[in-house]
Amino acid sequence: MAQTEFSIKSAADWLRQNDNFLIITHEHPDGDALGSIFGMLSMLRKNGKTADAFLPEPLPEKYLDFAPCDFRSELSRIELNSYNYCISLDNPKTTRAGMGANLAFNDIVLPVLNIDHHPDNSQFGKWNLVMPKAAATAEIIYSIFKEIPEWQISPTTASLLMLGIVTDTGGFRFDNTSPDVLRKAAELLELNADYHKIVLNMFFSNPLIQQEFEAELMMHHLRLKCNGRFAWFFIPNELLKKYSIDMRNTEGLIEALRVIKGTEIVAIMQPREEGFKISLRSKNPKYSVGAIARQLNGGGHELAAGGLIKTTSRESAEKILLAHVEKVLNEI
Amino acid sequence: MAQTEFSIKSAADWLRQNDNFLIITHEHPDGDALGSIFGMLSMLRKNGKTADAFLPEPLPEKYLDFAPCDFRSELSRIELNSYNYCISLDNPKTTRAGMGANLAFNDIVLPVLNIDHHPDNSQFGKWNLVMPKAAATAEIIYSIFKEIPEWQISPTTASLLMLGIVTDTGGFRFDNTSPDVLRKAAELLELNADYHKIVLNMFFSNPLIQQEFEAELMMHHLRLKCNGRFAWFFIPNELLKKYSIDMRNTEGLIEALRVIKGTEIVAIMQPREEGFKISLRSKNPKYSVGAIARQLNGGGHELAAGGLIKTTSRESAEKILLAHVEKVLNEI
Repeated sequence: MAQTEFSIKSAADWLRQNDNFLIITHEHPDGDALGSIFGMLSMLRKNGKTADAFLPEPLPEKYLDFAPCDFRSELSRIELNSYNYCISLDNPKTTRAGMGANLAFNDIVLPVLNIDHHPDNSQFGKWNLVMPKAAATAEIIYSIFKEIPEWQISPTTASLLMLGIVTDTGGFRFDNTSPDVLRKAAELLELNADYHKIVLNMFFSNPLIQQEFEAELMMHHLRLKCNGRFAWFFIPNELLKKYSIDMRNTEGLIEALRVIKGTEIVAIMQPREEGFKISLRSKNPKYSVGAIARQLNGGGHELAAGGLIKTTSRESAEKILLAHVEKVLNEI
Repeated sequence: MAQTEFSIKSAADWLRQNDNFLIITHEHPDGDALGSIFGMLSMLRKNGKTADAFLPEPLPEKYLDFAPCDFRSELSRIELNSYNYCISLDNPKTTRAGMGANLAFNDIVLPVLNIDHHPDNSQFGKWNLVMPKAAATAEIIYSIFKEIPEWQISPTTASLLMLGIVTDTGGFRFDNTSPDVLRKAAELLELNADYHKIVLNMFFSNPLIQQEFEAELMMHHLRLKCNGRFAWFFIPNELLKKYSIDMRNTEGLIEALRVIKGTEIVAIMQPREEGFKISLRSKNPKYSVGAIARQLNGGGHELAAGGLIKTTSRESAEKILLAHVEKVLNEI
């Protein structure tokens, strides 16, 4: 299949000229994935286009308020291919597309427009607009919409794009907080994005039980190595049960490690059937956790990534992770 | 004394035309107080003016990296009045000025320029530029500097003003996060403000012991009333001793209450010799904690304020506070 690199401008023209879109994103969607697909959906429908968003898994609780009521949570193979085009947003690889248990990305026979900001995006679309310098996929989408001045950006669309930007900049705390993204946030505010609601839902709506869970983790399950430069929580399944915690709702948990003075790389480790799931964050652009994750059956950004250590014992998983982290921390 | 209201423009002209300034701020300075006085100091000196900043108390640890080495921590009455002018920044009242144990605001016989964003500023200057709509005093100061295009804004000045903005918007999480302040932050980034350092020091440098202290507070000293809409920590002195906590370094502690879902007003209460010190935050613009604080020997902003309950027993202090909070929460 011939592949074309798209500019912001050509993506805008493409949206103008075409119709009848299916919008998808990556599995286990976060705020940028959801803000992007629902923002795109809202924009297209508001401006006379036919579109659906496909999301075959339950939404994390804090995003429930942002989802439209009529996205598609189930599609047959025939329905899937009844659209003219597929738009894949914030999804780096065909294997990571959120297609549910009954479908796979390869079931899509539609031509695909791939818009993403992950540096490891595999350019799987017929058309590809991949901008690793963008803080969020929602930021790229907003740039596209600005190139279609005859279309209206509703407060709903503005809120959804802002949700994506706020999520992927950690509320303007990560190093991807650029002058550009701050100015786009200012413009989205002027378009009546509901910033109060976004901040409230993203940062000030942790269930009490989750805060107590975090407090117990901090008191009894925190591990530190490399003179405090590497910190991690090992999360026993019993603790999840004790507090009835659904890990899908604890995206911010790893922040509790980032706030500790002196930490440079932080991680959360959780037992899974296939081994130990790892989430990684780096506080320092010098140390890439993306590189670690790519060696541990995973991927992501340089400062935020995840992987899976395929081993049966906690000790060996921690040893493997520690070896990788030490190597990165000692490189410079 | 005749008092004059100043505009941004007249403050800019005033700085251009005058020289030999003493810069002061409020006692127990926070990031906006410090960013404002050191930002003003750095700007004036960089552009050929003579100026000193007066700060007669030790700095909270997380701001140490931002202070110049040569501010004045001691001044005699004669030295105090050896300047031509006093510039008071982020300081709402003469009684709250940080003058140290040996001086009071009334010892100043210089003409005072008063620049502030607190709504309860008492307009005590000969010249007053009070803008309650500004998110931070540092934001006002940056607006003034933009009116002096022939002066250079150094990366140091830009970083200090950014520190003020980041502090008083809660890292762009409070409702005062306006399109204007986001655009100013974008400009300060372009002036090479060291945003990475600011965010690292403000949000990702809590000593481990402080996180453990917070975890113990959450597990054992959290109180909730009004169906979870009001939450507070009562901080026993023994707990401060156990963790060797200096409350000057725990500005962010109250955030741990704000993040809890359902809370609308949150507080920290601490025993003091004169009674119980109260810090208050509101998550909802409908509920003014400023109004509560003004009735409790204190003041501040509508969403962030503090006071002192003059009573000897904890029970009676909590009862008084709860009555005020209930009144505010039930008003609507």
